[in-house]
Amino acid sequence: MQTTFELSATDRHSKARRGRLTSAHGEIDTPAFMPVGTQGSVKGVSPRELRELHAQIVLGNTYHLFVRPGLDVIKRFGGLHNFMNWNGPILTDSGGYQIFSLAKLRKITEEGVEFQNHIDGARAFISPEIAMEIQMLLGSDITMALDECVPYPCKYDYAAQSAEMTTRWARRCREALQRREETVQSSTSNAQRPITEGIQSAIRDPQSAIKRQLVFGIVQGATFEDLRKESAQAIVDLDFDGYAIGGVSVGEPEEEMMRAVEWTEPVLPGNKPRYTMGLGTPPQLLELIARGMDMFDCVLPTRLARNGTAFTATGTVNLKNAEFILDKNPIEKNCACDACREFSRGYIRHLIKAEEILGLRLITLHNLHFYLNLMNQARAEIEKGTFDQFRKAFVAQYKTREAVTVE
Amino acid sequence: MQTTFELSATDRHSKARRGRLTSAHGEIDTPAFMPVGTQGSVKGVSPRELRELHAQIVLGNTYHLFVRPGLDVIKRFGGLHNFMNWNGPILTDSGGYQIFSLAKLRKITEEGVEFQNHIDGARAFISPEIAMEIQMLLGSDITMALDECVPYPCKYDYAAQSAEMTTRWARRCREALQRREETVQSSTSNAQRPITEGIQSAIRDPQSAIKRQLVFGIVQGATFEDLRKESAQAIVDLDFDGYAIGGVSVGEPEEEMMRAVEWTEPVLPGNKPRYTMGLGTPPQLLELIARGMDMFDCVLPTRLARNGTAFTATGTVNLKNAEFILDKNPIEKNCACDACREFSRGYIRHLIKAEEILGLRLITLHNLHFYLNLMNQARAEIEKGTFDQFRKAFVAQYKTREAVTVE
Repeated sequence: MQTTFELSATDRHSKARRGRLTSAHGEIDTPAFMPVGTQGSVKGVSPRELRELHAQIVLGNTYHLFVRPGLDVIKRFGGLHNFMNWNGPILTDSGGYQIFSLAKLRKITEEGVEFQNHIDGARAFISPEIAMEIQMLLGSDITMALDECVPYPCKYDYAAQSAEMTTRWARRCREALQRREETVQSSTSNAQRPITEGIQSAIRDPQSAIKRQLVFGIVQGATFEDLRKESAQAIVDLDFDGYAIGGVSVGEPEEEMMRAVEWTEPVLPGNKPRYTMGLGTPPQLLELIARGMDMFDCVLPTRLARNGTAFTATGTVNLKNAEFILDKNPIEKNCACDACREFSRGYIRHLIKAEEILGLRLITLHNLHFYLNLMNQARAEIEKGTFDQFRKAFVAQYKTREAVTVE
Repeated sequence: MQTTFELSATDRHSKARRGRLTSAHGEIDTPAFMPVGTQGSVKGVSPRELRELHAQIVLGNTYHLFVRPGLDVIKRFGGLHNFMNWNGPILTDSGGYQIFSLAKLRKITEEGVEFQNHIDGARAFISPEIAMEIQMLLGSDITMALDECVPYPCKYDYAAQSAEMTTRWARRCREALQRREETVQSSTSNAQRPITEGIQSAIRDPQSAIKRQLVFGIVQGATFEDLRKESAQAIVDLDFDGYAIGGVSVGEPEEEMMRAVEWTEPVLPGNKPRYTMGLGTPPQLLELIARGMDMFDCVLPTRLARNGTAFTATGTVNLKNAEFILDKNPIEKNCACDACREFSRGYIRHLIKAEEILGLRLITLHNLHFYLNLMNQARAEIEKGTFDQFRKAFVAQYKTREAVTVE
């Protein structure tokens, strides 16, 4: 398979890696944070602002887009990039996670999942093949195999059976991709045959060496060491473009989550990117980088912003608090984001209290800048060989001042 | 009094005028539309976006800012310009309109108005002198005299008494301003004496020839010709920097509103700007310009945007409608706004249906651009001597497709 990921530096004191993933719509420097654009929009910000924030990739949620506006609509617009006017890389999940967390009346069989969506209750069915078909139509640069994400806590027997089924589903995704690539190659060599608009969108960037969609396999296995290792080996054997660790950030204690990552990581090949799904807080991200992880997505920076909570190097602050009423300082001193260069804590507090949209916009901008800049710093520290000191110093000074749950 | 308003062209076929008002924070080309920044933010947009939209002035609502965050806060930030990071001109109302429409338990006496605010019910009292003091502290470039805005319909006797009291209040505002200017002059010549931060803010722009706050008087008189004319003459006799027509857009039929303007206009001096408060739809604005009006403020472009309604040259469209699901066109063809250059109706419809903030942001940008551009066109047509044809053609093709009420 074509080389899409290259490592340029590794840390001597941890498993941290500095890499670059090449996709159809551009390169992604790793470690990378991917802002979450659930419904085809990163909540509160525009594509232009994302570019100004130097976001290199955004995530789209297949389930949400499937339910609304629906695939027919996105197909007619020539794929998700065109629809949302974002010409950088897009990673889409398989839809599985939201089916298991949001949809009603789920029925899981070997064939796939039947469910009713949470918006209008319409019935739908998704299989590994359909999940790949949908993501092809969306035109995502990085697609995810369909998996079952089991809840926490989960009994051993169920976790074992589920992880095995996830492997069988992963194989079907891989095979569906293979069949499609053959179809694309044959249709590309024969201009008479129409190819789908999604594919057209995905291969639109003439600068990119990578013309095809990448696909990542997902490791499951809940909180059990042998299941995590078995799942990882089985998924790796299928030879994906990258590997995700799923079934984390589902309510388990942080130590359990870290253990799942530590068990899985040694099984994963060094020359492929590793993505821990749905994580996490800033210290967690650095700890996961130290454990060899490369890619992250999390709703915390955007979701907490809408509640008035901002991230800083010393922890989160809730700008609704009365202590900020007369505060002329920016959210964070020396922060280079637009919100901090132009506005005071006192003004942003007023906006949040008065429920002005600009308030959540400004905190969202700051929080995304914080996360993206943290990855930027991590990459620079890995290159300099000083990542481990950086991580320890950051984690030591970062205080979690309020209960923050990642959902 | 220093010349702050200059007319450069007048229409031969109507009373339309092309002018320029000079304020402490810059010039305002008239006819001018002023986006409404009720609580220190034009809903949904940032100051940077307002600059990119070429908005030359924004409006702030004294009542809202008085209630939240409170004057002490804005004073500590050095005035409203600093607080909201907008360095262009700001017009503030006197607070009267919102006291009469929003506050509870109002008690109006000759001295002023006692009320409980609608947020926490705290009691407060505002007099003509206090209204001027507050606007001085806010640092507004254009302040409004305190008036009583009577409801529609209103009995003749009450309207007559009220208009007379508004005149007495206007005189007190004028006198308060006079006393303050004397104080400022004396304190400016004596560096030992502190001057208020609000004033510092208002006179901050060294480029401006106008160092002082301007003050506009407000004509009342409800729907009665003699009262409107008497009120106008009495207010004009007090010699303000500009004249506003108040008590319009309070629920009266459009013909009543137009009549109130037509009765008032001949009494107003030609060398001062005229501001019709709280108006209106795009055709109304052109009709008011044709009737000699220069300045407008209205929440329609921002408020309707949040409901999915966009303005176009052929009328309003509600982007929630199913007809736009697959529409790849921009909100309005050939529109130069960012929303129209970058996004389709179909995508914006999806955002609005999915309650994504970006949806209302994009429609707000478009609507503000529409209003500001309409004024830009009107100015150009007046200069070319073709305003009357322009107005007639615009009004003829503009269809009001849904009930639109200005509040």
